[in-house]
Amino acid sequence: MIKLLKTSICAVLLTGLCFPLMAQKNATYVNAESLTIIGKSMATANVYDRADTSKYSTLPARVKQLLTNTAGVAISFTTNSTSISAKWCVTMSKAYPNLTAIANKGLDLYIKNNGKWQYAGIAKPTGVCSEGLLVDGMYNVEKECLLYLPIYDAVRKLEIGVDAKAEIKAASNPFKKRILVYGSSIVQGSGASRSGIAYPAQLSRLTGLNFINLGLSGSAKMEPEVADMVAAIDADAYILDCVPNSTPAQITERTGYLINTIRKQHPDAPIMVMQSIVREQGYWNKKTGAVVKNQNINIQKEVMTLLEKGMKNLYFITSENLIGNDHEGSVDGVHPNDLGFYRMTQQLLPQFTDILNKHGITNK
Amino acid sequence: MIKLLKTSICAVLLTGLCFPLMAQKNATYVNAESLTIIGKSMATANVYDRADTSKYSTLPARVKQLLTNTAGVAISFTTNSTSISAKWCVTMSKAYPNLTAIANKGLDLYIKNNGKWQYAGIAKPTGVCSEGLLVDGMYNVEKECLLYLPIYDAVRKLEIGVDAKAEIKAASNPFKKRILVYGSSIVQGSGASRSGIAYPAQLSRLTGLNFINLGLSGSAKMEPEVADMVAAIDADAYILDCVPNSTPAQITERTGYLINTIRKQHPDAPIMVMQSIVREQGYWNKKTGAVVKNQNINIQKEVMTLLEKGMKNLYFITSENLIGNDHEGSVDGVHPNDLGFYRMTQQLLPQFTDILNKHGITNK
Repeated sequence: MIKLLKTSICAVLLTGLCFPLMAQKNATYVNAESLTIIGKSMATANVYDRADTSKYSTLPARVKQLLTNTAGVAISFTTNSTSISAKWCVTMSKAYPNLTAIANKGLDLYIKNNGKWQYAGIAKPTGVCSEGLLVDGMYNVEKECLLYLPIYDAVRKLEIGVDAKAEIKAASNPFKKRILVYGSSIVQGSGASRSGIAYPAQLSRLTGLNFINLGLSGSAKMEPEVADMVAAIDADAYILDCVPNSTPAQITERTGYLINTIRKQHPDAPIMVMQSIVREQGYWNKKTGAVVKNQNINIQKEVMTLLEKGMKNLYFITSENLIGNDHEGSVDGVHPNDLGFYRMTQQLLPQFTDILNKHGITNK
Repeated sequence: MIKLLKTSICAVLLTGLCFPLMAQKNATYVNAESLTIIGKSMATANVYDRADTSKYSTLPARVKQLLTNTAGVAISFTTNSTSISAKWCVTMSKAYPNLTAIANKGLDLYIKNNGKWQYAGIAKPTGVCSEGLLVDGMYNVEKECLLYLPIYDAVRKLEIGVDAKAEIKAASNPFKKRILVYGSSIVQGSGASRSGIAYPAQLSRLTGLNFINLGLSGSAKMEPEVADMVAAIDADAYILDCVPNSTPAQITERTGYLINTIRKQHPDAPIMVMQSIVREQGYWNKKTGAVVKNQNINIQKEVMTLLEKGMKNLYFITSENLIGNDHEGSVDGVHPNDLGFYRMTQQLLPQFTDILNKHGITNK
């Protein structure tokens, strides 16, 4: 306890607003593969990948690579440890200028408190392999934990450390059912300051439902090969937030195939199609503004056509108010910042919940 | 126009959610020193520094270094250009893991739209010296612009580029009066995704008043030498948000000197003293939580003592609700994220405005 006290005092008092500095000494580390890995769209050979791309050999190379990014993937475990650390390795991929290193290649821990998931700590990367103390000084009671992996890199190795005499155990997936979210960098979480801020992660924590992140950076282009993979993924509902990466013409050309292919394999599953958030860039660059407008018009036309043809359980979510109207909800004019993701989550939550409840998709 | 159209189409359609890729060709660049530099606490030899540390030789070395960071410093200009670019150089200082590169070493542009400042674009750093297109495709009418410099680095050179035939001119400081904000990394903007999100910058845009950022990372420790410098800075009002970096004992020891020294040089100026935001870390690490509580108790005691002794125009701002209560307002358990800074601004705005109005400190 003296040691923990010293660490805290160091972190808070001597260096001011600094981070905990190092993983705890005398910790016991367990391989995270022995715990419960959640948030993947399917079983994979490489345990932290989001999808098994070897099964879908015709996928675009960039899509395959992005499916190794661990956006939305998290480790579910319980522990009575007073501290939690991690040792992990990512790749040498270049850092993104609109992401913190914490979001890009770091870890983000939530712990359940009075029935609600609550932020508990981050670990910051220091290189390809890093060690970090996520949280310390806690009571030694059993806690339900969720450790989010990097949103924009692959994880090659992950060990979770607890006090030498503490227990750490695999927990069940805290989120029920499966709601697949296929989309762009906005789904993946680009612009979030840490992994848990991506909107599918926020929706999971708030609903108790399992929103699976299939965000594909700038590569959510609804190619037929990708549509086939998306449709083959087992889920109770499908959210398509893939407008931002496709040209207006591609949207017209590809949306029908994507939705019909999902419908063929999942005759009753709700399919929720989202318009693109308004790009802040587009308020100044009139051509960018016009492109987004046309993307959103074209996706609406496609959905309306399918509805008119009689497709059931197909829903359309407009972009209205998604990131607010004060123009402060983006990091770069394209991607939401944490304010934008918060607003997006608050806007989407009642709309998705209504639709899912109607279909009996609840956390019971 | 064809070229601009191509750039936009590339950025939006071909590479998906990407950034504008390069500074525009055929632009005319002007040295930003020929425009209006705002947000500094005093005139300096090095034009982008926030304070002239050569006048205050006994300042701690780290404080001197931090005063070269350009937090809150911005360039005020008007232009009728359809595009705005920049070429700029910073230092080789290490990147912070809880900051985007855009905030750490990049640029953040706002343009006035219907009387309100609106986000217009960022430029992302690519090295010590970078070039970037902030915005293009605009109408060629005169626009009032504000370009924020990096929050966590020094600027060694800055040129602003406009269309070859466009005009660019120095504008007046759009913000009236001078309100000095002395404080920690939270004042400086650590955790903001871009410079304009730091709370003093948000307050300036929302009030039309000139909130001057004297945020000093982890080094706002109210040392007597720093107190002497703060008191010597000419301002209409003083905000002290410097609790987070001092131990509870230092707060007891140093607050009186800081406030009395300011009061001596500015007999009537309102002095607003803030408690520290609650640290999310402290909800789990009970000792961290206790330290913050004691810091906040001690600052309150010091302010109450001065009020009881009869000091006038001294105000106390509690930490209540500053970053919200859902625990999602921080990037790392210590620093606000953009959601936290938004909430902080919304909480502080009416409190500061009331006090400032009462003292006749308005944007008229």
